[in-house]
Amino acid sequence: MAFEKVKRSENYSEWYNNLVKNADLAEHSAVKGCMVIKPYGYAIWEKMQQQLDRMFKETGHSNAYFPLFVPKSLFEKEEKNAEGFAKECAVVTHYRLKNDPDHPGKLMVDPNSKLEEELIVRPTSEAIIWNTYKNWIQSYRDLPILINQWANVVRWEMRTRLFLRTAEFLWQEGHTAHATKEEAIAETVQMLEVYADFAENHMAVPVIKGVKSENERFAGADDTYCIEGMMQDGKALQMGTSHFLGQNFAKAFDVKFQSKEGKLDFVWATSWGVSTRLMGALIMVHSDDEGLVLPPKLAPIHVVIVPVYKSDEELAKVSEKALEIKKALELHGLTVKFDCRDTYKPGFKFAEWELKGVPVRIALGPRDLDNQTAEVARRDTKTKETIALDSLVPHVAGLMDTIQNDLFAKAAAFRADKTFEANNWEEFLDIINNKEGFAMAHWDGTGETEEKIKEMTKATIRCIPLDMKQESGNCVLTGKPSVGRVVFAKAY
Amino acid sequence: MAFEKVKRSENYSEWYNNLVKNADLAEHSAVKGCMVIKPYGYAIWEKMQQQLDRMFKETGHSNAYFPLFVPKSLFEKEEKNAEGFAKECAVVTHYRLKNDPDHPGKLMVDPNSKLEEELIVRPTSEAIIWNTYKNWIQSYRDLPILINQWANVVRWEMRTRLFLRTAEFLWQEGHTAHATKEEAIAETVQMLEVYADFAENHMAVPVIKGVKSENERFAGADDTYCIEGMMQDGKALQMGTSHFLGQNFAKAFDVKFQSKEGKLDFVWATSWGVSTRLMGALIMVHSDDEGLVLPPKLAPIHVVIVPVYKSDEELAKVSEKALEIKKALELHGLTVKFDCRDTYKPGFKFAEWELKGVPVRIALGPRDLDNQTAEVARRDTKTKETIALDSLVPHVAGLMDTIQNDLFAKAAAFRADKTFEANNWEEFLDIINNKEGFAMAHWDGTGETEEKIKEMTKATIRCIPLDMKQESGNCVLTGKPSVGRVVFAKAY
Repeated sequence: MAFEKVKRSENYSEWYNNLVKNADLAEHSAVKGCMVIKPYGYAIWEKMQQQLDRMFKETGHSNAYFPLFVPKSLFEKEEKNAEGFAKECAVVTHYRLKNDPDHPGKLMVDPNSKLEEELIVRPTSEAIIWNTYKNWIQSYRDLPILINQWANVVRWEMRTRLFLRTAEFLWQEGHTAHATKEEAIAETVQMLEVYADFAENHMAVPVIKGVKSENERFAGADDTYCIEGMMQDGKALQMGTSHFLGQNFAKAFDVKFQSKEGKLDFVWATSWGVSTRLMGALIMVHSDDEGLVLPPKLAPIHVVIVPVYKSDEELAKVSEKALEIKKALELHGLTVKFDCRDTYKPGFKFAEWELKGVPVRIALGPRDLDNQTAEVARRDTKTKETIALDSLVPHVAGLMDTIQNDLFAKAAAFRADKTFEANNWEEFLDIINNKEGFAMAHWDGTGETEEKIKEMTKATIRCIPLDMKQESGNCVLTGKPSVGRVVFAKAY
Repeated sequence: MAFEKVKRSENYSEWYNNLVKNADLAEHSAVKGCMVIKPYGYAIWEKMQQQLDRMFKETGHSNAYFPLFVPKSLFEKEEKNAEGFAKECAVVTHYRLKNDPDHPGKLMVDPNSKLEEELIVRPTSEAIIWNTYKNWIQSYRDLPILINQWANVVRWEMRTRLFLRTAEFLWQEGHTAHATKEEAIAETVQMLEVYADFAENHMAVPVIKGVKSENERFAGADDTYCIEGMMQDGKALQMGTSHFLGQNFAKAFDVKFQSKEGKLDFVWATSWGVSTRLMGALIMVHSDDEGLVLPPKLAPIHVVIVPVYKSDEELAKVSEKALEIKKALELHGLTVKFDCRDTYKPGFKFAEWELKGVPVRIALGPRDLDNQTAEVARRDTKTKETIALDSLVPHVAGLMDTIQNDLFAKAAAFRADKTFEANNWEEFLDIINNKEGFAMAHWDGTGETEEKIKEMTKATIRCIPLDMKQESGNCVLTGKPSVGRVVFAKAY
């Protein structure tokens, strides 16, 4: 492929940008901070959506759709939430354009179309949704409400990166309403488990499940649960969050229900979301200097068959066999591409499908046919094997699970290698600055200390792990007592 | 059900609004002109999406995603398109809120966050997409580009109606680029056929395929093809459009390609879309005074089983059988709801599921078990039959096709009854004002006459049918010569 190769080891950030561009995943648009998700990138996102949607429905949720716009007076009702997002809000102030009298052929905003009340383009939908739930909930019989929405949201960002941080992004946001605190917390945790399950068993990305410190909590939440993954540069990426919102939104929007016992009480809430940011994680965890590496469960194409031939007769023979193999693999539920373009040589095609991360490549030529074999190459390990044609299909079908599991194991081993215990400030600095990984360290539990560590090292508390071992120790910075280690890392 | 029933015959428009509300499909939101699509309504929309998406992919299209915002300077480039949408554009002018010093706890738009260039919330995406395609297309080898996008769009409307006309709506928009005019026209027609296939074979709504007159053409198109359905009040609803855009957008955005022969030429374009408006058509064509009637192919629930019992023992017995039936029906690919709520009587449940349009209801009580039968009720015809248990499952499974076909046939017969030939102005007026249906009439082909007829009768030319019979005649208004009849009707 005619593209500029950048090595991970040389410039990780440029490697990422180049890969996203060259593998045809996404690109910057003419709108500052907004991206175009290209068909190949979108096909991976669709696979993610389908699986997540299935998991949401299996846990009892339904999809619905709420407005893109939030009137300012609703937006500001839950004050912490409003304050948290106020600085990144795109605001609609007018609803009409007109011809610009000074510039024929150009348009201008019609000053007579100023809205009485400005509309915020949703950065998240708690406000508009809880204003709606208010009318849906009178009694405990109306609860729980278990709704998810697939939507676009806008958070104005100055420094953007494709998939990781964009002004507009695609996501899903679950918004649930419950009669009791316990039920709402159970829902919050359940959805965290769904996200972890998806990350580990579909994306093949091991994650730490935890709770955010107060500093990193979602604006308006009582508790934010998260899953955190480790990228190949040792940095953390927050891959999904599930918020226990307490009664904050119910109070802000006055949403009460009558309990079985006839008492009026505010409703308990959760919200949870993952976004196209997951694309960034998927790319950064598995890919290599040759390009994308995709876990089979999220690959739009599982197998590519590349014919090797010199004459039209050879191509005809090889094609016949290739199409037979394709059909047989499709019966195993695999998506197979037969790349019979006559405008490119096999070597070019090999590189292109490597760049695009197709898990398995089958090369098939006349000599293979003579020997009744095919060459099977794995994208993840770059190993090649010669496989007898009569066992090719079950072999390749079986490889899908193998690759899926191997990718997870590799990422888990990498993370284990890059996760260190820091027992004092020197060790902490060494991990964050030199070893570049996760520092498991004691912390005194104050936002002040967290803030100081951030200023000094750029590392933040990614989470307090749910499975934190009770262990008495001393805060790496202040020496004050602590009951367990939390995860510090630089993060995206 | 405790809701206000309105009869179609008494007030069609109120009947529609009530039905949308009472069947839990959608409701108005706090944002003027924007709707909330509720879970049951969204489930129907998801069924539509899934089927359409399948059809788009089968015809070679891929999904992608382009930004929500269009910078004004891009938006105005294709002048006709810009002019057509200018009056209904939501405009983002600022990107930040701040605390309002005069109103503690309230926010205000930060005047320092004014954008240098205003952003239009997309009313349609030709501009942003063709500005992107410009970078994707150099040679004929880059063509065709066959892309679809599922998205929300905003067209500011003063008078809105749930699903039919809302400021924000959900839709898909296909945007394709081609090397030749012929290929682009073929694509335009192909997608019209896909829409007609979907409308007739999935929505069970017969449609007329045709071309719009110049007055009704999409702003920026050389030709707009459409499918038009007839609602139960005899009015027309435009259900989908497919536009041949010529080279208009290629010229506006300077998108040229090198042909096989080495010549530079502008690219040819199409765009095509259907929206949540289809929900309005689906509701209006089939439903009755009892509520929604859904064609099985788009029903979120195909069969509801309602137990009839007096004691817990009876319920246990009936439940066992009901769950057995449910499982067997699910093996036929049907979605089955067993409504075992003990808080409602069977009669209430019957009415609720009728309101929600579930195609088939099975009622099962102890006496049925004794007789080895069940009562099967069709929603569309409201007929009930007693069916032997051992033939129940194949009978109900078979009913799905029957109901699907009967709904189409009924709608087609209704349309035939309400379609009239108008051979002079008196007949024309009688059809439009009294008979309330489609008037097939000769027209002199001028926009002027069309405009006059619209002013006088509110009827517009819905389309010039693709299968128009060549027949010489005289324009109903001007008496000037005409070569065939076009479809006039009042429209949504």
